[in-house]
Amino acid sequence: MKQFHIKTLNRKIGSALQEKIDNLTKPKGSLGRLEELAFQVGIIQQTLSPVLCMPQNIVFAADHGIVKEGVSFSPPEVTAQQIYNFLKGGAGINMFARQHHFILKVVDCGVNADFENLPGLINRKIRKGTHNYLFEPAMSKEEFEKAIQIGLEMVQWAYQEGTNIISFGELGIANTSSASIWMSYFTDIPLQACVGAGSGLDHQGILHKYQVLKKAMENYRGDHSPEDILRWFGGFEMVAAVGGMLQAAELGMTILIDGFIMTNCALAASKLHPEVLEYCIFTHQGDEAGHKLVLDFLHAKPILNLGLRLGEGTGAICAYPIVESAIRMLNEMSSFKEAAVTKYF
Amino acid sequence: MKQFHIKTLNRKIGSALQEKIDNLTKPKGSLGRLEELAFQVGIIQQTLSPVLCMPQNIVFAADHGIVKEGVSFSPPEVTAQQIYNFLKGGAGINMFARQHHFILKVVDCGVNADFENLPGLINRKIRKGTHNYLFEPAMSKEEFEKAIQIGLEMVQWAYQEGTNIISFGELGIANTSSASIWMSYFTDIPLQACVGAGSGLDHQGILHKYQVLKKAMENYRGDHSPEDILRWFGGFEMVAAVGGMLQAAELGMTILIDGFIMTNCALAASKLHPEVLEYCIFTHQGDEAGHKLVLDFLHAKPILNLGLRLGEGTGAICAYPIVESAIRMLNEMSSFKEAAVTKYF
Repeated sequence: MKQFHIKTLNRKIGSALQEKIDNLTKPKGSLGRLEELAFQVGIIQQTLSPVLCMPQNIVFAADHGIVKEGVSFSPPEVTAQQIYNFLKGGAGINMFARQHHFILKVVDCGVNADFENLPGLINRKIRKGTHNYLFEPAMSKEEFEKAIQIGLEMVQWAYQEGTNIISFGELGIANTSSASIWMSYFTDIPLQACVGAGSGLDHQGILHKYQVLKKAMENYRGDHSPEDILRWFGGFEMVAAVGGMLQAAELGMTILIDGFIMTNCALAASKLHPEVLEYCIFTHQGDEAGHKLVLDFLHAKPILNLGLRLGEGTGAICAYPIVESAIRMLNEMSSFKEAAVTKYF
Repeated sequence: MKQFHIKTLNRKIGSALQEKIDNLTKPKGSLGRLEELAFQVGIIQQTLSPVLCMPQNIVFAADHGIVKEGVSFSPPEVTAQQIYNFLKGGAGINMFARQHHFILKVVDCGVNADFENLPGLINRKIRKGTHNYLFEPAMSKEEFEKAIQIGLEMVQWAYQEGTNIISFGELGIANTSSASIWMSYFTDIPLQACVGAGSGLDHQGILHKYQVLKKAMENYRGDHSPEDILRWFGGFEMVAAVGGMLQAAELGMTILIDGFIMTNCALAASKLHPEVLEYCIFTHQGDEAGHKLVLDFLHAKPILNLGLRLGEGTGAICAYPIVESAIRMLNEMSSFKEAAVTKYF
């Protein structure tokens, strides 16, 4: 795997940043979470006047062999159907991207369908879906490397386009299953607490999903390294997101982390390079069981809690204007001195 | 006082709205709070395809006689100083308004300063601040009527400009005191639970503020009608906001309710006309003690919880893009049928 070189952030500028924030015309601390976000982005960009350029959301799509075990409420053909919907602009992620002027890219990492040369779809298909990890590794070591490489290349492309703030989304029926297993491995939280309804399983369905995943974990015969856990239970789209996050951190981008799946991709990325988390803003706490637990494990304080569970990067883009407000605060609000307002704290 | 005619919303369109929402290409309910917001605005506008036009935030400013009792951390001259800051575009509310394309109006209802004819400031000064309600009513009945009238006129003006979604903000050092007393009267929650730090009081300061307000309530000699409570303890800017909310509801606008002060103005408005609440979206739960309690009393589920406590309407505008996302969902997402996606619920 490519060696990523992710810098631990230099916090020297922190005191000057905090002083700037505390001297804006407002009671100290009265813009709450916005002040924390401004601080974090200032540290990432090493400036008192950060800017957000060409925000971009990259959706990685792939199918999952485990779907044969009946772990998802949604039928597997939805992955491919939704690709067409994305390209026509009719999916949830499209309207968020239009609203907040995100560049949106959709990457086929391994969807179980033949798209030929579908305009607008970025074709990086590794295989038509992973193997069924109840019985064997989801992907080979070479396929794992390829998936990491896809994420890396997409982020390098974004960097060349001028993007300095990026989010990742996913499309892949049954991928909450992979995310739950990664989560349980990397946090030591019992699997049962990591498994939830996904796109709409009932109690019985969740129990069945849990039993399948438990069996899959029992059948695991790998070397227990993070890379091996990722490839054994991962989806191509999730490993691509991990590669994307690592590359984005190496390039000093701010990374907006979407919902349950992407939170677990950030967790996985941090097992390879812990510094990646310094570049991450956690945008949304969803209703999927386990999401709050993994956020707590990461000491992450999500911006929104709107009960979203659509994936695709929707939570990240939905939270973007809040991050933008934070940056505008730093750049546009007057200081007490400039405004000749009595400093009141 | 003007008789407002606020319609109880006709909910007949509700089942068609819900059906439209449930047939968009997403797992049922997976856009969480956005689906509820879309439903509410659809009901307010009585359409399956609502639109948001010319969003507008009106900031009412005034000073408070009670400030002499040392109930606020901020010095009283800040009210006037911040007016200049607003007009120069350097305050918190300015950057939010620019970001989300809100028309911003600043109305002097009773600031203790001579602004002459300051360009950009709407002069509706009733008096240079209210009386000290520790000893006498904050305003006369005539002044109360005038304040209601200011809100009403500003909203009629907005309506003529094409605004159909509106928020109100306030500027007035010591107005959390008025809000706490209104809250305690109208909810029967003990005053102590309604009193908080405002712009930055410490524990001792909060205790002193509580004791002053308790004494003020003991000294009350009015007729206990909602109108009388409003005028006795109100600020001009708060009564203007109450008038504005009632007029906005009468005109069928969607009303974005900001933080602690505005939540208590909505509460007060509902004591005059309970139907007003059907038009209100509660945008933000702040850190001011008592805010969660009054929201719970109103069965209100705020969109954001970002620890803001700046007032001015900042929470409302900060939440606006979320409401806009909800409306885009209704208008821009494909249905399962349009997108030929297998309906998966």
